[in-house]
Amino acid sequence: MSGNIFGNLFKLTTFGESHGVAIGGVLDGCPSGIALDFEAIQKELDRRKPGQSAIVTQRKEPDTVEFYSGIFEGKTTGTPIGFAIHNTNQKSKDYSHIKDSYRPSHADYVYDKKYGFRDYRGGGRSSARETASRVVAGAIAKQFLKDIKINAFVSQVGDLKLEKNYTELDLSMTESNPVRCPDPEMASKMEAYIKDVKKEGDTIGGIITCVAQNVPIGLGEPVFDKLHAELGKAMLSINAVKGFEYGSGFEGVKMKGSAHNDQFNPDGSTRTNYSGGIQGGISNGMDIYFNTAFKPVATIIKPYETIDKEGNKVQTQGKGRHDPCVVPRAVPIVEAMTALVLADFMLLERTSKL
Amino acid sequence: MSGNIFGNLFKLTTFGESHGVAIGGVLDGCPSGIALDFEAIQKELDRRKPGQSAIVTQRKEPDTVEFYSGIFEGKTTGTPIGFAIHNTNQKSKDYSHIKDSYRPSHADYVYDKKYGFRDYRGGGRSSARETASRVVAGAIAKQFLKDIKINAFVSQVGDLKLEKNYTELDLSMTESNPVRCPDPEMASKMEAYIKDVKKEGDTIGGIITCVAQNVPIGLGEPVFDKLHAELGKAMLSINAVKGFEYGSGFEGVKMKGSAHNDQFNPDGSTRTNYSGGIQGGISNGMDIYFNTAFKPVATIIKPYETIDKEGNKVQTQGKGRHDPCVVPRAVPIVEAMTALVLADFMLLERTSKL
Amino acid sequence: MSGNIFGNLFKLTTFGESHGVAIGGVLDGCPSGIALDFEAIQKELDRRKPGQSAIVTQRKEPDTVEFYSGIFEGKTTGTPIGFAIHNTNQKSKDYSHIKDSYRPSHADYVYDKKYGFRDYRGGGRSSARETASRVVAGAIAKQFLKDIKINAFVSQVGDLKLEKNYTELDLSMTESNPVRCPDPEMASKMEAYIKDVKKEGDTIGGIITCVAQNVPIGLGEPVFDKLHAELGKAMLSINAVKGFEYGSGFEGVKMKGSAHNDQFNPDGSTRTNYSGGIQGGISNGMDIYFNTAFKPVATIIKPYETIDKEGNKVQTQGKGRHDPCVVPRAVPIVEAMTALVLADFMLLERTSKL
Amino acid sequence: MSGNIFGNLFKLTTFGESHGVAIGGVLDGCPSGIALDFEAIQKELDRRKPGQSAIVTQRKEPDTVEFYSGIFEGKTTGTPIGFAIHNTNQKSKDYSHIKDSYRPSHADYVYDKKYGFRDYRGGGRSSARETASRVVAGAIAKQFLKDIKINAFVSQVGDLKLEKNYTELDLSMTESNPVRCPDPEMASKMEAYIKDVKKEGDTIGGIITCVAQNVPIGLGEPVFDKLHAELGKAMLSINAVKGFEYGSGFEGVKMKGSAHNDQFNPDGSTRTNYSGGIQGGISNGMDIYFNTAFKPVATIIKPYETIDKEGNKVQTQGKGRHDPCVVPRAVPIVEAMTALVLADFMLLERTSKL
Repeated sequence: MSGNIFGNLFKLTTFGESHGVAIGGVLDGCPSGIALDFEAIQKELDRRKPGQSAIVTQRKEPDTVEFYSGIFEGKTTGTPIGFAIHNTNQKSKDYSHIKDSYRPSHADYVYDKKYGFRDYRGGGRSSARETASRVVAGAIAKQFLKDIKINAFVSQVGDLKLEKNYTELDLSMTESNPVRCPDPEMASKMEAYIKDVKKEGDTIGGIITCVAQNVPIGLGEPVFDKLHAELGKAMLSINAVKGFEYGSGFEGVKMKGSAHNDQFNPDGSTRTNYSGGIQGGISNGMDIYFNTAFKPVATIIKPYETIDKEGNKVQTQGKGRHDPCVVPRAVPIVEAMTALVLADFMLLERTSKL
Repeated sequence: MSGNIFGNLFKLTTFGESHGVAIGGVLDGCPSGIALDFEAIQKELDRRKPGQSAIVTQRKEPDTVEFYSGIFEGKTTGTPIGFAIHNTNQKSKDYSHIKDSYRPSHADYVYDKKYGFRDYRGGGRSSARETASRVVAGAIAKQFLKDIKINAFVSQVGDLKLEKNYTELDLSMTESNPVRCPDPEMASKMEAYIKDVKKEGDTIGGIITCVAQNVPIGLGEPVFDKLHAELGKAMLSINAVKGFEYGSGFEGVKMKGSAHNDQFNPDGSTRTNYSGGIQGGISNGMDIYFNTAFKPVATIIKPYETIDKEGNKVQTQGKGRHDPCVVPRAVPIVEAMTALVLADFMLLERTSKL
Repeated sequence: MSGNIFGNLFKLTTFGESHGVAIGGVLDGCPSGIALDFEAIQKELDRRKPGQSAIVTQRKEPDTVEFYSGIFEGKTTGTPIGFAIHNTNQKSKDYSHIKDSYRPSHADYVYDKKYGFRDYRGGGRSSARETASRVVAGAIAKQFLKDIKINAFVSQVGDLKLEKNYTELDLSMTESNPVRCPDPEMASKMEAYIKDVKKEGDTIGGIITCVAQNVPIGLGEPVFDKLHAELGKAMLSINAVKGFEYGSGFEGVKMKGSAHNDQFNPDGSTRTNYSGGIQGGISNGMDIYFNTAFKPVATIIKPYETIDKEGNKVQTQGKGRHDPCVVPRAVPIVEAMTALVLADFMLLERTSKL
Repeated sequence: MSGNIFGNLFKLTTFGESHGVAIGGVLDGCPSGIALDFEAIQKELDRRKPGQSAIVTQRKEPDTVEFYSGIFEGKTTGTPIGFAIHNTNQKSKDYSHIKDSYRPSHADYVYDKKYGFRDYRGGGRSSARETASRVVAGAIAKQFLKDIKINAFVSQVGDLKLEKNYTELDLSMTESNPVRCPDPEMASKMEAYIKDVKKEGDTIGGIITCVAQNVPIGLGEPVFDKLHAELGKAMLSINAVKGFEYGSGFEGVKMKGSAHNDQFNPDGSTRTNYSGGIQGGISNGMDIYFNTAFKPVATIIKPYETIDKEGNKVQTQGKGRHDPCVVPRAVPIVEAMTALVLADFMLLERTSKL
């Protein structure tokens, strides 16, 4: 309830600040008997890791996860999986300039007001470094989900928007370029644009599209915990996210019901999928797809003006090593959160019938 | 966890099907000592009520709430507030035609798969009638929140989009027309359009904008339970919602950080408000504003084709009395859910400091 | 969290004061497809009902439950089961004498301090009348549990203690007498004793033993949510309960491990059952048995001295119609809470393995 | 819900097996601004530590806690406090003899049935080693509770029962002897007795009494989450506990209401305290006191017979270094769990009034 636990049955608690000793988490409620592929877990972390390409932050963090419990002879035991990632490359000095001033559109100001003071180093708990713990848990969730495929990719950077629908794309191309856009031509445009923005010392926003396939019928609960409501909350809980839409989304408001309704095929599948694989909050077996909008990250290298604790004007500029555009590294985070939501509902669904 | 409870401290459980005996709920965790204005509660219900104008469903449901507990001599006692609204105008016969067939883009098909069978009358639990219970609880939440003003209004119907920002509108005009759009000129266009759609036996989508003002600094939790994540979940849990965005939202992805960052005034307020009143998941004292997208409702009066339980093609058409456009009646629901989220975080915020 | 919700998956919310409009509840998470036996539910309520014999309170409350939702054509639908029992025989005037004074060992004083004021009529929310809602939900839980047999009985009243072990008793005799003690000889002694206590205008405590048989192996969670910890909480949440012990209980502290350890039979059952059917917090397939201790109820008819809100001495005496000994009517409540705990863990157990 | 999270607002998640890499936890919801006394935390761990005297297990575990997050410049920040205690002295070989057989009255058998297999080394997750994490969190809770004094002590070992009431004892003497009994004469008897039991290769049970003083009026929730119900659950969740009683407890059933009722003094305090400081589930400002019964631990060094996975008889005997009587080391655990419950309700109580 103070917001560091996610899920109801397949349940992740995370801890850790960007410049503390370690970040990590506890995954509770993971069923016993999953033979874990540890390389696959590390691979997901590597997709999120800083320093992986020229268009992301150049911090060097090995992000090696240590598992403390809940695994015996390579298999999950049904007991909580405790894990930690030690922080090794903190340059806390990079942050001494913000100790007494508030970075615009950051959490600095509200943390001070809410808690009375804050760990100002690297944003502390408000840093996106916390999401590494989500990626670890999400990678385990993916292994639990087995046949369910979750593919996220970058579909927009600034004004550069991929107009193709996900069904027209080869999603196996996503990892072929540093932007994580499965359309190579658009990917190079986006990459060039991000480099320009970086040169300016500025940042830019973007959109990640995510597709979940082979989701069984019946996941999601009718009223408050609709499948798309939990997915929406999961996405909105990721740093820098400003919006979420699924299926026809915001464009769907312009359609008439006669066009928007998805007609059935005799086997219960539908000819169109404006519903985005979810009806009445419950998966219907069709592909689930949704968009998540990320703002331009607040930390810019350009000089800017702000205030200090006393309200005095301060001239400053970003230091440290930051992302000009957050979406390429956020792709595995979107997938991880999707996997956590689906794993939770997969377990819950076991309880719906006599 | 089976999805009929909302909130953590200020906590609503709802029950009821559209054609059962009664709908209702239990509001638990409401602080003691609130002198309730019962007329104000009924007024909110009346805003959601069917039959209030020519552009909404013509069902007649008085929707009178009976309170069973938790109130003594006009004040909340701190014990759970149980309440019910008896169903009085069900025409279950209107629904016998869907007993054995599935309406496209409705919850019919997934309910049958998830639970093994379903209460087919009027959509049962999947009916938006459930939201009347939310409006009751939300009206109590509003009275708890006192100085916090929550105003929702219709900002788009189909292609008709109100281009003005909420700051340029007189929000007291919202209730002056049946569409609940505070711009009278746009309101009449929308009204005329909805009437046309209704004549066709069709439906159309729309967008509701909501603004919360005078929210204290510090509401929301840093990681998973960010204020906007809970607001997003709350909105996405409303029937027919397909998308949520706050602050700069989906448009914000096109902006650069240097333009998007909200510069501070000396008092901690900001010159712009692309953040939408929330930074790092925590309210910063500025106006909170967000958009919620509603699809065209699935029930159309036009003839359509569908399948029955055996997968046979069926020719049918909607019966009953339905809304051609759901957004006018959804305005009080959006406000209610906003009030529930804010009330919950108001209580939680009392626990953050020593 | 404000304490009116019980359970995690099979989850009961209750509401209502003894002298309000109605008491009731919402049972959420009950699986679909249970064909309900409504007579069996009413029968459980009748076992708890006032006025059923000469040794219980003579209030007349029909305690007829109305179901509002979650049931269709006699079966649970998987949606929340809302229900209410209207209060019909309140004599609130009986309580005007305690409006401004605090009854010793009642909740009067602490309610006033906690909430600022209280609904003083009949104890309000602190009245054991609330447990009628638990009995309704517990009766549904029993039907879900099918083959699991839950039998509670009175094993002690004052100093009158049934020395026989439950295995030596014919538990089908429990309902044969108003005390609900399955040993007829002891039952008449207890009955006579309770009548004496009643004549004095006094009250007396007692113990209820409960046995759950045919519980499958594997219910309960290893650490905080051990099966006996949840059973203990469930029992301690019943009005007037002061203690809980299971298996060897308090007597077990005097034993040595070599005697206390339950030796295995080849089939995994055990020769003795000091463990009370639970090892490491998890059911092992043997009978689960436990004792719950009830204090003498605080409301006595004898004159007594107390204080009013200003701390002034007040001479008063109980009015109204009260139980001289609470255990006979508490037997169905103990069974109901046991059923709720087991139903919750039955659902949860479905999620423990891959 | 899978039982590794305790508390609702002041909330502890624990992880770890006795012979895994590390045990530890995450304390979420701890208010910001508590200046932590780290020595006091370690001191509590030392009270629970093996090897501290001749009457406890001779394992050597330094049990040094490492804090990973949630603390900045010595103060809690309001963000989750992650911590770990690395396991350093595991002798897993001591346990290879139980790999394929089930120790009587241990969790071995039920773990295998529940999860399909188990980490057999040292009992894995079912080991009382997990409680070290509770002691860490409880020590922080104690610092949050400041003026509330929590004192637990051993009041019974086998048949040796301290007949004095806690009010007649000098509780500052508890730490003066290895048994943790504040009566020096009884303490030496108990110590001698435990040594005898140890020589026999056997074990013996005991009772811990706990007293919480200066608890403010108003903690606890009226219905399911009564203060004593949560305390009971907390105690029953500790390894080897078989019973819980508070105030007059099991003895109270023999009393009449006229004697049991606690008469008020003019200031609202009571002349007697059979209520144990709790009325209607809510603290009344008087001392809270309760007893927790521990069985003789199951691991004995004497030879015994058991079965293997196939149900074959096996002759074996305990190896490793075990406690002949668990209560001396359980005293800080009882205090820790009490502190966690009180801290949770202290936060919740902030939300009860307008």
